[in-house]
Amino acid sequence: MHAHAISFIQDLAVLMLTAGMVTILCHRFRQPVVLGYILAGFLIGPHMPLFELASLSKGGLINDEESIKTLAELGVIFLMFCLGLEFSLRKLFSVGATAFFAAFMEILLMVWLGWEVGQFFGWTRMDSIFLGAILAMSSTTIIVKALSDLKMKHERFAQQIFGVLIVEDILGIGIIALLSGIAVSGNVEPGEVFSTVGKLSLFMIVALVIGILLVPRLLSYVAKFESSEMLLITVLGLCFGFCLLVVKLQYSMVLGAFLIGAIMAESRQLMQIEKLIEPVRDMFSAIFFVAIGLMIDPATLLSQPWPIFVITLVVIFGKVISCSLGAFLAGNDGRTSLRVGMGLSQIGEFSFIIAALGMTLGVTSDFLYPIVVAVSAITTLTTPYQIRAADPISRTLTSWMPAPIARVFGLYGEWLRNISPQGDGVLIMAMIRKIILQIGVNFALVVAIFLASAWFAAPIAAYLNHWISQDNLQKGIIWSGALLVSLPFLIAAYRKLKALSMMLAEMGVKAEKAGRHTLRVRRVIAELIPLLSLGTMFFLLMGLSASILPTMELLVIIALCAALVAVLLRRWFIRVHTKIQVALLDTLEQGKEGH
Amino acid sequence: MHAHAISFIQDLAVLMLTAGMVTILCHRFRQPVVLGYILAGFLIGPHMPLFELASLSKGGLINDEESIKTLAELGVIFLMFCLGLEFSLRKLFSVGATAFFAAFMEILLMVWLGWEVGQFFGWTRMDSIFLGAILAMSSTTIIVKALSDLKMKHERFAQQIFGVLIVEDILGIGIIALLSGIAVSGNVEPGEVFSTVGKLSLFMIVALVIGILLVPRLLSYVAKFESSEMLLITVLGLCFGFCLLVVKLQYSMVLGAFLIGAIMAESRQLMQIEKLIEPVRDMFSAIFFVAIGLMIDPATLLSQPWPIFVITLVVIFGKVISCSLGAFLAGNDGRTSLRVGMGLSQIGEFSFIIAALGMTLGVTSDFLYPIVVAVSAITTLTTPYQIRAADPISRTLTSWMPAPIARVFGLYGEWLRNISPQGDGVLIMAMIRKIILQIGVNFALVVAIFLASAWFAAPIAAYLNHWISQDNLQKGIIWSGALLVSLPFLIAAYRKLKALSMMLAEMGVKAEKAGRHTLRVRRVIAELIPLLSLGTMFFLLMGLSASILPTMELLVIIALCAALVAVLLRRWFIRVHTKIQVALLDTLEQGKEGH
Repeated sequence: MHAHAISFIQDLAVLMLTAGMVTILCHRFRQPVVLGYILAGFLIGPHMPLFELASLSKGGLINDEESIKTLAELGVIFLMFCLGLEFSLRKLFSVGATAFFAAFMEILLMVWLGWEVGQFFGWTRMDSIFLGAILAMSSTTIIVKALSDLKMKHERFAQQIFGVLIVEDILGIGIIALLSGIAVSGNVEPGEVFSTVGKLSLFMIVALVIGILLVPRLLSYVAKFESSEMLLITVLGLCFGFCLLVVKLQYSMVLGAFLIGAIMAESRQLMQIEKLIEPVRDMFSAIFFVAIGLMIDPATLLSQPWPIFVITLVVIFGKVISCSLGAFLAGNDGRTSLRVGMGLSQIGEFSFIIAALGMTLGVTSDFLYPIVVAVSAITTLTTPYQIRAADPISRTLTSWMPAPIARVFGLYGEWLRNISPQGDGVLIMAMIRKIILQIGVNFALVVAIFLASAWFAAPIAAYLNHWISQDNLQKGIIWSGALLVSLPFLIAAYRKLKALSMMLAEMGVKAEKAGRHTLRVRRVIAELIPLLSLGTMFFLLMGLSASILPTMELLVIIALCAALVAVLLRRWFIRVHTKIQVALLDTLEQGKEGH
Repeated sequence: MHAHAISFIQDLAVLMLTAGMVTILCHRFRQPVVLGYILAGFLIGPHMPLFELASLSKGGLINDEESIKTLAELGVIFLMFCLGLEFSLRKLFSVGATAFFAAFMEILLMVWLGWEVGQFFGWTRMDSIFLGAILAMSSTTIIVKALSDLKMKHERFAQQIFGVLIVEDILGIGIIALLSGIAVSGNVEPGEVFSTVGKLSLFMIVALVIGILLVPRLLSYVAKFESSEMLLITVLGLCFGFCLLVVKLQYSMVLGAFLIGAIMAESRQLMQIEKLIEPVRDMFSAIFFVAIGLMIDPATLLSQPWPIFVITLVVIFGKVISCSLGAFLAGNDGRTSLRVGMGLSQIGEFSFIIAALGMTLGVTSDFLYPIVVAVSAITTLTTPYQIRAADPISRTLTSWMPAPIARVFGLYGEWLRNISPQGDGVLIMAMIRKIILQIGVNFALVVAIFLASAWFAAPIAAYLNHWISQDNLQKGIIWSGALLVSLPFLIAAYRKLKALSMMLAEMGVKAEKAGRHTLRVRRVIAELIPLLSLGTMFFLLMGLSASILPTMELLVIIALCAALVAVLLRRWFIRVHTKIQVALLDTLEQGKEGH
């Protein structure tokens, strides 16, 4: 064993032993393990005041912080991968309005508050933006720990909190992708944000569709060998490989880990994979949290008492207000809303990941990270008390509230119950939502096909050069190829659109208003909407594929040919699309069985 | 994520993806996973001929081989740790004579053959010694795989093979410690080998006794929290920490990993620990085996066809002959013996670890490693055929064998059955073995106490300087302190020795021979043996603790005081010792229940 390996093992030994001892102590005093790790990191870190006082081993007990940090990044990947495994598309579709409302309200308000606080303290634009993002996310680990300790995990408000956390996960992933873009370009243009979000959504939809078609099949194949070793190696290979792909596409590795986790969550082997990957995650995430502790410099903390105090207050009050309001607006009673808000008001591991992102990108200041850790530590300690305080506070509020305001609140709830669909309406709304989702996925795939053809246009053109030298013809071939591949999805989208517009026409054009024109108006609407949508789609595609767009005459010829092909091979295309759809839904169904 | 982390993730992605794909292929063609890993390493390694031909990415697909190698060393630690977990003292005590005979025969013959082969090819002394050690060990992984494939895992010869493998493990650990010593000092003195083996056995006994007293208790305490994360972190901390301690004592890390694994094997949480550590081991051991593949240079292999051919033949025939002979001498019939020998004739992961040791110590030549890998690959492929061929060969041998030789073999078996103890004899032999073991452990602990006092003499003397300045008195105090701590063990050893010598006297001095002196002779023997042994022990201790030995007069005073204390506090010392012994046996019993 050479010297480097020994010093590496020594670092790991010190790290794990300290982490083990401190977490046992933390557990005795009923604090979350994460706090223990961070404390352990601080104890063995270079800023430990005891070492400096004794002028013993100035650099702390860790010889090679660089290696530990590299392993810590693996920890982030495994943390996000496991978050993805626990996330699931089904869960996202089934969370109610509360989750969406509360998560949106929380993220919008907290990003804004974070930005304002940063500006108030005179921090840089980047520090302020990152602070906003850091404050936006709550901590699943800490909430689960607090709710289990209080034995409230199965109450209704707890279920609503878990719904909010799921929505937060996917929005947080979006925020991370956005922040990476902003950090590289250096400024925040609304147009750019819009295009980043668009591209990101597109990438996520395409990755999920292709991933769910391929990955669970591959995993099922490997699982047949009944070797947990091979399954683990395959899972790790796919995880790292996908992360790498995502990095090559200029997105964050964290996004890749989460997405591949979400894809694997749809496989039958989910339970087995979770069991295999958990020890690996625990090992590396311990390193990640200890590495956070290594960075805490008490001098920085002592020099920043006000930001820590103010941000802690902002986190607690901002989150309680925004989440409670969101929950209330979605139709919960005051008590439940307040409990949801109280439960969600802390920051945790997601915030560390965002802070670490800012640090590795080199765009945030050094003091941000320790402040975030301090605020997280404080809000972790307060979370259980907040949850317990929710009921007394809601009782006090109710008794103090002036009668008119209470009446307004009561009326709001009644109104909400009136406008929400009932009986058949619920079914129809669910159907419409499903159709819109299908149309969206089909359009996203078409857009992805055209973007991919534009991306690969140069090598394809070089290849075509052997036979066809004319630039316009080459473009025409590539474009019509992309169109041909897209046809199944376009036809499917058209059919769904038609079904949707018929439903809308039926519901929107009531016989008592349109009188004898009812049927005709309905038919016009039912025909018009799909055609208009397809037309818009074509213009969008022409914009996106500008680099491979042939001349207008050729385009018209291609479009006519495509229309002819579409009409002639209509049945075949539908069959192809149905097969793909069935395969996708099968996997999703199988995943459900696996749970 | 900074550039270094991305290149690291890329390496891991390439490694895991290739390993996953190749092992799936290997599994399809019913070859062990280990071969797949090595092949994967070769495919992505810097010596892959395809890359060199295409002059594409000259260094292979791995950017940072150094980091991969560091992780590979973690892989060795986890491999040996899991080997330790599967090893168990109980298993070692319960393996029969076959295992000991076959393992000793195999190791002696193969080390000698390896040395001779190395010398024959004109290799250096170190290369030859390492080759001997490499050839001595068989591969558990490959045998288990072959036997499961052949569905022979539960046959009698398979059980005997597993026994041999357990003995091999502990002897292999000894060989590794010896090799490290030889590599550092550079030569092989019989005296030094003896002292190394002595010190090693002492260290192992002390580590096992103290470890089994402390570690399972600690693990039970941590397991009470019912957090598999905390248990994992504690296990990892203990594993790395113990490895580090062992390295500081100038032993190999591999030894430490194995020992702490063997200690944890006695805890109630064994099953849980195995489940937690397995994915971690699988991940890192995959990296270890792939790293082996990275080092294979086909040019080296092609330039060494003769050594590979000769060593392969030596492995197959040498192991078949030595193991079969050992099994036969221990009393098995010819067919079983041949099957044992055929099953054990290959080399595998232990050989890689020894080869890696030679490489990291920088004492073996570069060509040794690839040759070992090639021989391992070939013998892996032949193992299943060998096992299958055992029966036909034994039939052929029986029919060809001249009658006189067959009769001699038959007589040997009969003689062996005659001399082996029967009825009460079996019980008495087991009892004697147990008492000898207990005496050995107690003496080892006493020796360890004196060695430790000699080790810590300087700081203790410095501390004593405040009160006592005379050198001789200081030494006297330290020496008598060591003696006081040793007293419980010395008294226990004395009592066991007395019991043993009474039994021996009873059995050795038959009434029909000694006549009317019988009782007196027996009593003399029963008193003499313990006193002589204790006397020898004292002289040994005086030699070992030469550096802290006071003058003779003082020593006599101390000895007299000690004798007085021993007689006066006899009961108390026995109680202390019994408590320790009960605690130790309790843990061993609890471990058994846990299985």
